[in-house]
Amino acid sequence: MINILLNGCGGKMGAMISQTIKNFPDLRIAVGVDKNPVSMEYTTFTSIKEVTEKVDVILDFSRPESLADLLSYAKENNVPLVLCTTGYTEEQLNIINSASKHQAIFRSSNMSLGINLINNLLKKISPVLYKDFDIEIIEKHHNQKVDAPSGTAILLANSIKDSIPESTKFVYGRDGIGKRQPLDIGIHAIRGGSIVGDHEVIYAGQGEIIELSHYAMSREVFAVGALKACQFINKKTEGLYSMDNIIESYMHI
Amino acid sequence: MINILLNGCGGKMGAMISQTIKNFPDLRIAVGVDKNPVSMEYTTFTSIKEVTEKVDVILDFSRPESLADLLSYAKENNVPLVLCTTGYTEEQLNIINSASKHQAIFRSSNMSLGINLINNLLKKISPVLYKDFDIEIIEKHHNQKVDAPSGTAILLANSIKDSIPESTKFVYGRDGIGKRQPLDIGIHAIRGGSIVGDHEVIYAGQGEIIELSHYAMSREVFAVGALKACQFINKKTEGLYSMDNIIESYMHI
Amino acid sequence: MINILLNGCGGKMGAMISQTIKNFPDLRIAVGVDKNPVSMEYTTFTSIKEVTEKVDVILDFSRPESLADLLSYAKENNVPLVLCTTGYTEEQLNIINSASKHQAIFRSSNMSLGINLINNLLKKISPVLYKDFDIEIIEKHHNQKVDAPSGTAILLANSIKDSIPESTKFVYGRDGIGKRQPLDIGIHAIRGGSIVGDHEVIYAGQGEIIELSHYAMSREVFAVGALKACQFINKKTEGLYSMDNIIESYMHI
Amino acid sequence: MINILLNGCGGKMGAMISQTIKNFPDLRIAVGVDKNPVSMEYTTFTSIKEVTEKVDVILDFSRPESLADLLSYAKENNVPLVLCTTGYTEEQLNIINSASKHQAIFRSSNMSLGINLINNLLKKISPVLYKDFDIEIIEKHHNQKVDAPSGTAILLANSIKDSIPESTKFVYGRDGIGKRQPLDIGIHAIRGGSIVGDHEVIYAGQGEIIELSHYAMSREVFAVGALKACQFINKKTEGLYSMDNIIESYMHI
Repeated sequence: MINILLNGCGGKMGAMISQTIKNFPDLRIAVGVDKNPVSMEYTTFTSIKEVTEKVDVILDFSRPESLADLLSYAKENNVPLVLCTTGYTEEQLNIINSASKHQAIFRSSNMSLGINLINNLLKKISPVLYKDFDIEIIEKHHNQKVDAPSGTAILLANSIKDSIPESTKFVYGRDGIGKRQPLDIGIHAIRGGSIVGDHEVIYAGQGEIIELSHYAMSREVFAVGALKACQFINKKTEGLYSMDNIIESYMHI
Repeated sequence: MINILLNGCGGKMGAMISQTIKNFPDLRIAVGVDKNPVSMEYTTFTSIKEVTEKVDVILDFSRPESLADLLSYAKENNVPLVLCTTGYTEEQLNIINSASKHQAIFRSSNMSLGINLINNLLKKISPVLYKDFDIEIIEKHHNQKVDAPSGTAILLANSIKDSIPESTKFVYGRDGIGKRQPLDIGIHAIRGGSIVGDHEVIYAGQGEIIELSHYAMSREVFAVGALKACQFINKKTEGLYSMDNIIESYMHI
Repeated sequence: MINILLNGCGGKMGAMISQTIKNFPDLRIAVGVDKNPVSMEYTTFTSIKEVTEKVDVILDFSRPESLADLLSYAKENNVPLVLCTTGYTEEQLNIINSASKHQAIFRSSNMSLGINLINNLLKKISPVLYKDFDIEIIEKHHNQKVDAPSGTAILLANSIKDSIPESTKFVYGRDGIGKRQPLDIGIHAIRGGSIVGDHEVIYAGQGEIIELSHYAMSREVFAVGALKACQFINKKTEGLYSMDNIIESYMHI
Repeated sequence: MINILLNGCGGKMGAMISQTIKNFPDLRIAVGVDKNPVSMEYTTFTSIKEVTEKVDVILDFSRPESLADLLSYAKENNVPLVLCTTGYTEEQLNIINSASKHQAIFRSSNMSLGINLINNLLKKISPVLYKDFDIEIIEKHHNQKVDAPSGTAILLANSIKDSIPESTKFVYGRDGIGKRQPLDIGIHAIRGGSIVGDHEVIYAGQGEIIELSHYAMSREVFAVGALKACQFINKKTEGLYSMDNIIESYMHI
């Protein structure tokens, strides 16, 4: 049984973790932390400094400003740390990298197993296909999303870009006269209704099209990915890990 | 048996008509016209003025500059005219409208039955849905297409716009910060490979999405529409008709 | 303000109604009924017979066995009734039909506005298209669904069948040798994961495909449809209504 | 410049090769063979035995009964052989395998680069995903196709099956009562209109779906794959190769 300290247990993702963990018989939340007092099925504190229970993994879905306290606690108690918080500054990312030399830290900008698997495949096939196939990305999200394209679409586009030995260019929609250039990567942001998050990567060639797609229907997928990260990092003592490591451990590549 | 005069019989669409007509037992090409001398299974001329055969319908897939000769011939011989040529000037369109008061003329900017059917449905459902659903259009075409969005996407978008009692705004792709506005109509032009022409109209609401889509796989669809227009206009003596009339005659609305 | 009596307020759809109604400023739940005692923001009873408040509409998401009590209460108090319960016997359906001669009753087997709109369009376009297009339905649902194809797929298929003047045949998947027959209607039931409910109707012709699709992402869509039904039936005194009436009232057809 | 002997030059795929090769500057058809006399831009014979030109690669799109002559000619002249013909008997496949010990032979049941790439990815991801995701395949073909599911769908399904360590079961459509079993692989054959060939592999999980899809729009894709096979096998002296070798040579796995 892996005992988890859940930081940010009172938020939306905290609630989702509390529910999803029921499908993971080897995992349990031993203790929760949230800056706002909350009542849960497990003991909770308003600061990680108050925690005295021994835990196996820290799982964090909170805010970038929690980072310092998390790293201190993890170091003192020798506990691996899974960071699912987004929005870290460059400086914070450097601190995480440095800390990972002596602590086990897991961090990914998207915790869905599916998106990370797709991302991994894109890196493999884009250099094979880019000379004969035009690459376009369509992403769809709800009408309340303020940024476009989505962070995940940018993640996918960068993976494609980095895997191609020539210089590509991102194109965000088209209006007017002018042919597509061979190394353009089109990125199209559809917004509407309550769409949780769709991503389609299209390789369009002469007479054939290849598509790799991911459709997220609920936040549960991020909870599942985070809990798999807890299983993955348990007992590790140092190093920086990401969903790519999980994907590759599964795929034996 | 309806005897057709095919104007522009030597072009790509002329060839497609000559092949597709074999599936229409009540139609035959009686005579062809092409400014370049061509050899066909039927008699051909390089000018419509040389034609002496009596025909029932004139089908035109040529160039805007043929218009005057076509209208003269049709008037003199009292023959209905199907115009599938695109690119007419405003002035030419006015001439067509005037002529149709005494001659039967059929003209549509897209001859596919399917696209026109979709277009017809959009006009019906957009006023029902627009308050609760966000409307976005995705169109996909080959990488040699010079204009974006496609003429057909614009046709569909205008039909939606005209059917909604409030003021909508076309948005051609998204990049940066800012939420979707309720009356935006997103139009996204994907370009790649050899895609003939896809159009998807998305109505995204709270918890549900409605989609009306059309996928063209070959130019044959335009030939079929043109031949159905010949059947439709046969024996008519005056009036301006379009694919909408065919759709509506079928739908009994 | 339309005051609603919500029968079955303690169930999943009852909870969804209680939440969704917040977006309908002209509607409120005046009183709830559930055979199990429940605590809500409004007064609740374990039997409709105990209700003394005056309401404008009864909304029912319960079990077929509640029918008799609902009809009695509605008749006595002269209140229109929206029945969203499914699984009525033939006998019960006959009772509903008879009662509707003197009471206003609304009943649909699927309360989603989107599916009913699609269903309405299918009736219009199938007779236009069936001679030139092959019709196939793909539906997708979660892996816990016990019946296949879905009730909604059958609803759509029957609407198509009834709108075509020739005799069609349902085909549930294909395995082996033998060409598709022109009047077959293929119905394909995909099962997997947590898919809430997708329905795609495909009209495949020579060189072109038309698709009408509906994707349900949450039960909220059924709540929205039910509340629109309450608005629709308010003040009506007799007659049997369905989502088709709402669709048609919107579409002015 | 690689000189090709095209066997079956008078057939549909022969014509497609003759056209597509214009995009491959390092390839040319040196000589054609067809049992029926045909007139081409290159010298043709009605039997491979009459050929005296020296060629670099033999490309075959003919009939299984040509096999013996092809193998003899290839052996005598020390020329690598690309077999795109399908329908070989078990005995013929054994002969091919034996011959490949001393001759270079390329053979694949589907020559599209895209389908083979998808097939390669399926083998990698299915063992990662199968415990948490339900796998379903949808294939779509024209209404004249006599077999269902398509050979390619079966190829893909077998690749999935072989990559999973547990015993899976193919299910060809669903009708009636009964829940999906976790190790079922659904295979759904849609038939309609003139669809050239679509294949979608769906991995449906809790809250997310991954899809890998291939859409063939013309036979050109098989010509491109065959010509890439000619480039690949040129100068090789022995061994049995398939599209998998090309994919893997590109992917450096």
